[in-house]
Amino acid sequence: MGVEIERKFLVPDGAPVPDGPESEIRQGYLVTDPGGAEARIRRRDGACTLTVKRGTGLVRGEWETPLDAGQFAALWPATEHARIDKTRRTVPLGPHEAVVDTYRGRLAGLRTAEVEFADPGRAAAFVPPPWFGPEVTGRPEYGNRELATAAGPPRP
Amino acid sequence: MGVEIERKFLVPDGAPVPDGPESEIRQGYLVTDPGGAEARIRRRDGACTLTVKRGTGLVRGEWETPLDAGQFAALWPATEHARIDKTRRTVPLGPHEAVVDTYRGRLAGLRTAEVEFADPGRAAAFVPPPWFGPEVTGRPEYGNRELATAAGPPRP
Repeated sequence: MGVEIERKFLVPDGAPVPDGPESEIRQGYLVTDPGGAEARIRRRDGACTLTVKRGTGLVRGEWETPLDAGQFAALWPATEHARIDKTRRTVPLGPHEAVVDTYRGRLAGLRTAEVEFADPGRAAAFVPPPWFGPEVTGRPEYGNRELATAAGPPRP
Repeated sequence: MGVEIERKFLVPDGAPVPDGPESEIRQGYLVTDPGGAEARIRRRDGACTLTVKRGTGLVRGEWETPLDAGQFAALWPATEHARIDKTRRTVPLGPHEAVVDTYRGRLAGLRTAEVEFADPGRAAAFVPPPWFGPEVTGRPEYGNRELATAAGPPRP
């Protein structure tokens, strides 16, 4: 339950994204509240999980449990209003790694890269590789919850 | 997903509640949103379930899946802010049945009886038995979600 320090960038069409292992991610929100709590289900390749998050800042809590395929199938229809389908590629980037998400469905055309850092100093010193596009760190329209209910990719 | 027609009453201390089968119910809310959506887990005797409800009125949806004991245990801590513990007794009442809930913990002292009807006519014609107390149908402070976060029993 530590604090995550991340920077997020767009990855333009045709950018030479390096190779890396890929997985298919499908996630949907069961319930979200404006205060930041959420219950989400996700299938990554074959593995399904239910995650509950509550609170903000230092009092943030996260709880998770695996679901079997039948449980996931029973709950998936409840997420119809808020879903994301994407392919995630993990790309080594010197001492870091970039998580490159290519969205499908309503969000087709959107591709983002996220890099997580151990501390704020390293985050500030990070030099994006040439295949990264504009930075969108902190822009709420690129958050998972917002993307899940967006009609299409945000305007860059 | 039909419409439920129910009336709810208080059951005073010392009222002669008829015998009936009992079960222990423990439930907690993972996430609720002000628009009416909720994700709830419940253990009734040994059986655990996760239920998601969305929407109001005619477009109400409900989805449910069983959970095993390990999944319930992993998620239960996420409900610390909103829990209910009660003993439920089911009592035959002529053509109907009353569900009598005796609350524990913070809500100790509260006991309610609920009767479900097939149609509004039968609901209106229902004559409460002498052991029923004041009617609280439609009073939001006696709803499940509200009780789950109440500091104590509502004032009658």
